[in-house]
Amino acid sequence: MPEQDDPQNIGQSMFGLAEELFPICRSITGDGVRQTLSIIQRELPNLTIHEVPSGTKCFDWVVPPEWNIRDAYIIDPSGDKVVDFNKSNLHVVSYSTPVDESMSLDELQEHLYSIPDDPDAIPYITSYYEEKWGFCLTHNQRENLKPGTYKVVIDSTLKLGHLTYGELILPGSTAEEVLISTYVCHPSMANNELSGPIVTSFLGKWLSELSDRRYTYRIIFIPETIGSICYLSKNIEQMKKNVVAGFNVSCIGDDRGYSYIASRKDGTLADRIVNHVLEFKVDRFTKYSFLERGSDERQYCAPGVDLPVVTVMRGGFNDFPEYHTSRDDLTVISPEGLFGGYELLRTCIECLEMNLKPVTKILCEPQLSKRDLYPQLSTKEYNVNVRNLMNVIAYSDGQTGLLEMAERFGSPMWEMYDILAILLQAEIVSVE
Amino acid sequence: MPEQDDPQNIGQSMFGLAEELFPICRSITGDGVRQTLSIIQRELPNLTIHEVPSGTKCFDWVVPPEWNIRDAYIIDPSGDKVVDFNKSNLHVVSYSTPVDESMSLDELQEHLYSIPDDPDAIPYITSYYEEKWGFCLTHNQRENLKPGTYKVVIDSTLKLGHLTYGELILPGSTAEEVLISTYVCHPSMANNELSGPIVTSFLGKWLSELSDRRYTYRIIFIPETIGSICYLSKNIEQMKKNVVAGFNVSCIGDDRGYSYIASRKDGTLADRIVNHVLEFKVDRFTKYSFLERGSDERQYCAPGVDLPVVTVMRGGFNDFPEYHTSRDDLTVISPEGLFGGYELLRTCIECLEMNLKPVTKILCEPQLSKRDLYPQLSTKEYNVNVRNLMNVIAYSDGQTGLLEMAERFGSPMWEMYDILAILLQAEIVSVE
Amino acid sequence: MPEQDDPQNIGQSMFGLAEELFPICRSITGDGVRQTLSIIQRELPNLTIHEVPSGTKCFDWVVPPEWNIRDAYIIDPSGDKVVDFNKSNLHVVSYSTPVDESMSLDELQEHLYSIPDDPDAIPYITSYYEEKWGFCLTHNQRENLKPGTYKVVIDSTLKLGHLTYGELILPGSTAEEVLISTYVCHPSMANNELSGPIVTSFLGKWLSELSDRRYTYRIIFIPETIGSICYLSKNIEQMKKNVVAGFNVSCIGDDRGYSYIASRKDGTLADRIVNHVLEFKVDRFTKYSFLERGSDERQYCAPGVDLPVVTVMRGGFNDFPEYHTSRDDLTVISPEGLFGGYELLRTCIECLEMNLKPVTKILCEPQLSKRDLYPQLSTKEYNVNVRNLMNVIAYSDGQTGLLEMAERFGSPMWEMYDILAILLQAEIVSVE
Repeated sequence: MPEQDDPQNIGQSMFGLAEELFPICRSITGDGVRQTLSIIQRELPNLTIHEVPSGTKCFDWVVPPEWNIRDAYIIDPSGDKVVDFNKSNLHVVSYSTPVDESMSLDELQEHLYSIPDDPDAIPYITSYYEEKWGFCLTHNQRENLKPGTYKVVIDSTLKLGHLTYGELILPGSTAEEVLISTYVCHPSMANNELSGPIVTSFLGKWLSELSDRRYTYRIIFIPETIGSICYLSKNIEQMKKNVVAGFNVSCIGDDRGYSYIASRKDGTLADRIVNHVLEFKVDRFTKYSFLERGSDERQYCAPGVDLPVVTVMRGGFNDFPEYHTSRDDLTVISPEGLFGGYELLRTCIECLEMNLKPVTKILCEPQLSKRDLYPQLSTKEYNVNVRNLMNVIAYSDGQTGLLEMAERFGSPMWEMYDILAILLQAEIVSVE
Repeated sequence: MPEQDDPQNIGQSMFGLAEELFPICRSITGDGVRQTLSIIQRELPNLTIHEVPSGTKCFDWVVPPEWNIRDAYIIDPSGDKVVDFNKSNLHVVSYSTPVDESMSLDELQEHLYSIPDDPDAIPYITSYYEEKWGFCLTHNQRENLKPGTYKVVIDSTLKLGHLTYGELILPGSTAEEVLISTYVCHPSMANNELSGPIVTSFLGKWLSELSDRRYTYRIIFIPETIGSICYLSKNIEQMKKNVVAGFNVSCIGDDRGYSYIASRKDGTLADRIVNHVLEFKVDRFTKYSFLERGSDERQYCAPGVDLPVVTVMRGGFNDFPEYHTSRDDLTVISPEGLFGGYELLRTCIECLEMNLKPVTKILCEPQLSKRDLYPQLSTKEYNVNVRNLMNVIAYSDGQTGLLEMAERFGSPMWEMYDILAILLQAEIVSVE
Repeated sequence: MPEQDDPQNIGQSMFGLAEELFPICRSITGDGVRQTLSIIQRELPNLTIHEVPSGTKCFDWVVPPEWNIRDAYIIDPSGDKVVDFNKSNLHVVSYSTPVDESMSLDELQEHLYSIPDDPDAIPYITSYYEEKWGFCLTHNQRENLKPGTYKVVIDSTLKLGHLTYGELILPGSTAEEVLISTYVCHPSMANNELSGPIVTSFLGKWLSELSDRRYTYRIIFIPETIGSICYLSKNIEQMKKNVVAGFNVSCIGDDRGYSYIASRKDGTLADRIVNHVLEFKVDRFTKYSFLERGSDERQYCAPGVDLPVVTVMRGGFNDFPEYHTSRDDLTVISPEGLFGGYELLRTCIECLEMNLKPVTKILCEPQLSKRDLYPQLSTKEYNVNVRNLMNVIAYSDGQTGLLEMAERFGSPMWEMYDILAILLQAEIVSVE
């Protein structure tokens, strides 16, 4: 593996970026997305920002009106501001239509959302495709509301505008592509979903500096669902032709183990790579079947789209208790958690890049002794490294990639890298 | 699933038919078969009766002479009628040549068959292809025979005639066929084999009334072995071309669990359907390998014939203690037992009919909210039905049938039916 | 199976041959190999001796100079001959250059080899491709050497000559070949490796006398590694075209269970045959993966060579404690051990010869009763042999060999032989 950068530094930088991005009120459209992408552009100067007009047809969907919000609050009968958007942008149902009314508590209740089982948490609620308005609050707050007349204000706009996304294409020596996709549509929640864009940004930085990329990298920062559908509707032909592996990056900044969601057909290059890396990198991990999907792999693996894409997570959205509530704050993620996710994906990409299929230039075993690669005297003990070296030679049939060798030999793929380098140097094998 | 008819009524009707058919002395040819088919024709008016002349060549076999019997008995030295065909038609070895003689007990013994280990049961013995005569009796009866001269009479005829079978073809909207085969050659035994023809008759009634059959149904009532060989010799070309699944129905009227014999190559559509239905319909069942075969699947799956046929049973012939003895009487079967077998096969046929391969009309996920199919607001809880709906959409790639989806999702196939109906209605998927 | 010869006699004859061959000082070239092949030629008169000149290029290798040795010893400061080639030819590093010098103990130590963990054993050391000289001795001997001046003599020659190997081609009725390969390059060690050439010699004798060989047999006695590489370089085109299964025979004369090393791709005919025979012949056995290879299967299965070759062993070289030391003497092997190895391979060859694919001449089941092959009366009990007979008929589809049938039926393949003979006789099936 290339030398590791200082985990401490990278982790801290990622966490710093999370702190900066956390307060922004993102949704699937609007200025919060633009502001977020603008900050990411600071890390990835070649990031291109795309704007797709409201009303654009994307397969079965239509880009919705753009939503922006300036303020929102509820004033109770005593004149107290009991719910305030400025304290948490989760307080407003995303895509709420504007409102400026007085109403009874009973009328108001029909617009309130809380979680009785988790009475201190504000839920995260959206209503992108049905025009309505609403407030989210803790169940304790809601229980304390007294009868009377409430003043309710949401200072939002919902009108023709754009859906905004970021795209970074890093050309490689082949047209074959690796997709890295993450989403930028969640308001103030940390693991789901600031961790994805942050880890992806740092992967993008690292990939930008790689001088010898074999694959072309397609890195996108999009709103979930409508964003991936919109992006696919514009790029599907090229992606179906070129993408050999893809990683959807989500919920990847906590310290809770690792997991991935298999692609619909399972067993693609992306599935095998992430499974192999997790086997040798971490003590244990969870593999979710596609039946437990929940993120943009739903679109990338849809029938007719059929891209080889997995979703890579630490504690996945199926399993983490703060999911889609105000409790998913910056305490859920950490510098170490973010760095772990980054390192996992970086290793996956290194493995992809190095998954070459060597082919021997020599029939039968090469004579290693004349090349100073082999102990001159046969002895009773066998050197493990020589054994692995011999194994790579023995499977250099031009059909077996280093990944398959690593799986077969029960060794991590990065041990195969060095051996391949030695064998190329000694002109024992070649690669295309 | 279509609405269930009243199990009580159907079970009772089937048991009534069993009581009517039980006393008839059937063999592989003769008037007992004709009488049986004539009664079945009352249930299935479109049943065609075929007569194949003795001497007709059927692959390696020849249709034997027709056998009929009027009376048979043994009179002991005291003048008592100790064995009497009128008490049980199992007393005579099927296909016995006529005899009218007096002989010593020693001479008689060479023509007697009994079961020492089951001394109250009369065995069921046949000699279709070697000309001989014999009597079957309980071992207790046999032990009580005293030395002396016996009068032995079998009033039978064995001469050129016909092999008789019944056939009902119910056309569907495609030429693809489902075979349902059962046999009508056993004398007074209930589970093996009145249960098969009775369950098959009622399946035929139900299928006759189905207005929208996708498949053509080929339902046959034949003598075992020579009947299936004879039938195949006349119809093999068409059957090899058209049959997509087949069920041989036998030993299916008792209350003893369920089982099936896999086809020779296993994994055919018939194997998968019956296995799936049993998995979701009953607590436990037995799958027999083809190496444990014993009924007409031997012919349908023979090399060169290779039809996708399984044998469906309740307590199979490998396992039930009354097998091929007088103890297999009407107490072995029951209205509930017969209805259970009927319902199993009816469900298999429903699954076959509904095993469509939907294909999405939409790239990426459809927008369910605009179709009133999806909760408008994302919440923390997931509705299982929505999940299954989403899964069917996600696998509507035109290559995955509802059976494969049900297997993959771990849900019964009939849950897929309703979802498919909704999706067709919503024009999200189509089927050929 | 053909009748077994008397195990006692064959075992004793094999052990006698081992006693005769044991003292000869073999290496990868030289007169020890010639003397060994000459004795084997007495058993196999048609064995052809080939001589390949030093300097001949063989893929990545070159045939080395020929090495011969007449005497070697070390005389200590007291004038005692403390190490003597005449007591054990393992005392000299194989391919040692000549030496006749006096030197201090310190200088001598650099040329000594012993095993501290096994202080009574002389190790077996070679230096074929680096010119050097050395002595091997027990660690106890070495510990007793006193300071002073030693006289060291190795009376060897290393000069242009030949690599010598033996080859026996036994033509069969087809051009398809079975390879049997073993090696003749080890000095006085019994299991590794006199057992291989001895068992192979006796297989060759047995095969020479078989009148109706289906396959052509290519039996070779070669030095390990350079010998197989040299042989392949001359014969690879024909072998790649013709070899359907191959057995490399090594470490096969002890009493320690059985094992084999799978071919690189596993699942070849050779793998399946040896696995099947071991399953039904012995209580337990070890299957080594190709990753645990160590003998000439390394060359036969190398990428681009890709022959279907397994290595068949009793206690394999991975597991036996005397491996490559003076302790691998005649007490490690036995008449019974050698006979067991011989019988295993003979059975494998019989299975190969008999692995025919019968095809039925009859659609549906044949009528066995008219052929006197089947009990005339149906009864409650089933004869196992009839069942196996019926199973062979049921799978005679022209695509299923007797090996696959035996695997499927869970019966040894030799039970299939007799059944096939009956069915061919009865004209129920044919074979190509």
